[in-house]
Amino acid sequence: MISKLFKDMLQGKSVIREFAEYAQRRGSEIGYENVFDYSLGNPSVPAPEKFTQVMEDLLKNENPCALHGYSPTLGNNVFRKVVADSLKRRFGIAYGPEHIFPASGAAAALAHAFRCISKPGDEIIAFAPIFPEYQPYVNQTGAKLVLVPASIPDFQIDFAEFEKVISEKTAAVLINTPSNPSGILFSDDTLKKLADILNKKQKEYGHEIFIISDEPYREIIFDGKEIPYVAKFYDNTLSCYSFSKSLSLPGERIGYVAVNPSCKDAEYIVPMCGQVSRGIGHNCPASIIQLAVAKVIDMTSDLSVYEENMNLIYDKLVELGFEVPRPDGTFYIFPKALEDDAVAFCKKALKYDLILVPSDSFGCPGYFRMAYCIDTEKVKRSLIAFEKFVAAEYPNK
Amino acid sequence: MISKLFKDMLQGKSVIREFAEYAQRRGSEIGYENVFDYSLGNPSVPAPEKFTQVMEDLLKNENPCALHGYSPTLGNNVFRKVVADSLKRRFGIAYGPEHIFPASGAAAALAHAFRCISKPGDEIIAFAPIFPEYQPYVNQTGAKLVLVPASIPDFQIDFAEFEKVISEKTAAVLINTPSNPSGILFSDDTLKKLADILNKKQKEYGHEIFIISDEPYREIIFDGKEIPYVAKFYDNTLSCYSFSKSLSLPGERIGYVAVNPSCKDAEYIVPMCGQVSRGIGHNCPASIIQLAVAKVIDMTSDLSVYEENMNLIYDKLVELGFEVPRPDGTFYIFPKALEDDAVAFCKKALKYDLILVPSDSFGCPGYFRMAYCIDTEKVKRSLIAFEKFVAAEYPNK
Repeated sequence: MISKLFKDMLQGKSVIREFAEYAQRRGSEIGYENVFDYSLGNPSVPAPEKFTQVMEDLLKNENPCALHGYSPTLGNNVFRKVVADSLKRRFGIAYGPEHIFPASGAAAALAHAFRCISKPGDEIIAFAPIFPEYQPYVNQTGAKLVLVPASIPDFQIDFAEFEKVISEKTAAVLINTPSNPSGILFSDDTLKKLADILNKKQKEYGHEIFIISDEPYREIIFDGKEIPYVAKFYDNTLSCYSFSKSLSLPGERIGYVAVNPSCKDAEYIVPMCGQVSRGIGHNCPASIIQLAVAKVIDMTSDLSVYEENMNLIYDKLVELGFEVPRPDGTFYIFPKALEDDAVAFCKKALKYDLILVPSDSFGCPGYFRMAYCIDTEKVKRSLIAFEKFVAAEYPNK
Repeated sequence: MISKLFKDMLQGKSVIREFAEYAQRRGSEIGYENVFDYSLGNPSVPAPEKFTQVMEDLLKNENPCALHGYSPTLGNNVFRKVVADSLKRRFGIAYGPEHIFPASGAAAALAHAFRCISKPGDEIIAFAPIFPEYQPYVNQTGAKLVLVPASIPDFQIDFAEFEKVISEKTAAVLINTPSNPSGILFSDDTLKKLADILNKKQKEYGHEIFIISDEPYREIIFDGKEIPYVAKFYDNTLSCYSFSKSLSLPGERIGYVAVNPSCKDAEYIVPMCGQVSRGIGHNCPASIIQLAVAKVIDMTSDLSVYEENMNLIYDKLVELGFEVPRPDGTFYIFPKALEDDAVAFCKKALKYDLILVPSDSFGCPGYFRMAYCIDTEKVKRSLIAFEKFVAAEYPNK
C-alpha cells in the first residue's frame, strides 16, 4: 500500500512553487521577459569560465574509469582536503580532510547533520523567518522543528523567546546567516550571546546542543562586510555548505558538512554521515563535479549583480514607503507588506506582473520575499511596475 | 548528543570493505597488479566515448545557467521522457515521463521506492543470497527486511519458505535479477510463480504487495540470453535502475525509479518520490549528468569482457572441483567454498593473494563471491594462483 504520510504531503503545496508556476504560465501569455518573477532563488549569473575549462580538461585527460568511478564511502579525498585547507586558511580553524563530508548540496548536508546529532523526539530550534523547507527536512528525521518568533525589526534573535523554548529536548539550533528570506546577517554580538546561552545550557542539561549552520549564501555579502563564519563562535558547530550559489551550480548538487575539529565527538561525525548515507541512499556528489570544484575552490561567480539589484530595489522600496530591513547579503529582500494580509498583497501585485512571495510559510506573516537573482535591466523595469502597483492599490501610502 | 544509532553502526564493518582494504594494503607491498582483487564491484571498462563527447558538447554549447541550474523537483523532463520512451520501446510497457523519477543511483532509487510503499513496522521480503547493503537500506526506513533462505543449488526461489514468511505485514518483495552475488537470473517460470502468489496474497490481505526490482545489472547478460524485465510479469512493480554498470558511471550517481503504469496508484508514486526527497536531502542527479545520459540512453560500455572473464573463471573452478552455479549475467560468480567455513576459506586464499569475499553477510553461508570486473590478463594469472591454492590447501579435492 502506498505511504499515507507521503501521499498526504502532496496536498501541502509550496507557496513559492505556486507563485513560480503562475509566473511560468503568465510568461507563456505575455512573454517571460515581461513577468517580474521574484519567486525562485535560482542563480542568474553563470559559473566561472574556469569551471567549464576544468570540466573539459578532466574529460580530455583523465582515465574515464577513474574519473567516473565510485568515490570512497566518505567522498573524494582530494575534494575533502582542498575544502579543509580552504576553510582553515580563510577562517583559522584547524580542519583536516577527516572533518569534511561531501554532500549533494545543502539539503543533503542538512539531512546528514540532523541525523548525526538528534534522535526521534528531540527538538531542533530555528529562528523565524525561515526557509520553509526546514519543516520537512527536520520532520522526516522524527525530530521536531521548534520556531522562535522573529525579532522585529532587527531580524536578530529574540533571546527572551529563545529561552522560553530551549529545553532538555533541544538537540540543536539551526541558523542561516545571511538569511533566506531576510538577507540579514546575525551580528557578532548575536552569535556570541547565542554561544553563551548554549554553553550554559549544555552544562545545565548535561548534553551537547549543536549549532547546525546552513550557509549557502556565505559568499554573497554586501557593503564590503566581512564574510561570516559561525563555527568561530561555537565549538559544537556543523557547517552545512553548498556551492549552488557561490559557483552558480545548483543543479550539480555539491556541498559539504564541515565538522568543527573542537566539536565534541568530532572524530565520529563524518564516519557517521557515511552510515546515514546508507539508509537515505545518498552516495556522494557526482565524481566529476567533486573533482572540478576542488580545482576552483576559492573562486566564485561574479556575484556583484546581486548587490547592484539589492541597492536598486531597496532604495525604491524605501522611497515608496515600505518598511524594509536592508539585506547584508544573499539575493533576497524581505519587506513588510502594505497591508496585514501578505497573501492578499501579493495577489494584488500579480495584476502588475510582479511575482512576490508572501511570508506566511516563512513563519513570519505580513512580509513578502523577493529573490532578485534576475537581470538588472528587468529589475529596473519592475520598479516602474512597483510604482504603479503602490499608487493604484495603496494610494494613501 | 551524537546519535547512538549511527555511532553504533560504525562497529559493524562491511566484510567486503575489509577484504577490499586488505587488497589495497597488500597492493602497496607487492604492487597492486599482483593482487588478485575480486572484492569490489567497480566497473573495469570505460564509459562509451560518445558519453565523453556529449559531455564536452554540453559544456561548449549550452548556457551555463541552464546547464548547471536546478532540475525541476521531479527531475529533468528530457531525461524522464527519454527513459520512458526507451523502456516502452524495449519492453513494451506504456511508460510516460510521469512514471520516471530520476535518482542518484540505485541506492537512491531504492531509498525512494521503499519509503513510497511501506511504513515503519512493515516487512519487505528478499531472497538469499542478497547484496548486504539491503539491510541498512531497509532498516533505516523503519520497515524490516525478512530473508527467505537460498534455494540451493538453482538459486531461484524456495517458494515453500517464501509462503512461510509472507504475511499481512508484507509491503513489498525486493528482488535483484540477475543477482549480486550469484549472477543468476530468475527464470520466467520463477517470476510467473512469484507474481501468481503475490496476486493471490494481495486479494487475501486486501492491500497491495509491491515488487521492488533492483536492476543495476540488467544489461550485463551472458550467452545471448534475453534481457530480463521484471515489470512485464507483475503490475505493481517499481523498477530501480542505475547506469553505474551499463555506462560505467558509478561515481556520477545516476539512475531512476520506473513506476509500472499499470501499478495501483501509479499517478501518485513519482510525486511522492519528490516528497521523500525533501526529507532525505536528495535533489535529483547532477544536472549535466542527466542531460548527457539522456543522449546515450540505449548505449552501453563494451561489456563483453565480463562474459569473457566469467567463462575463464567458471571453467577453471569447475575443473578444480568447485560447485558453482553458472552466472547468467552481472560480473559476479558465487561458488561454494571448499570447506564449510567460508571465512576460513577466504582467509587461506589470501596467502595466494586471492581476494575472495565470504558469503556470510550475503545471507548464505559457505560460499564466496568474486567480482570479476578486472582485466582479463589478471584473471588468467589469478587462475594459476587458484590452482596452487587448491592443490596446497585442499589436496584431497
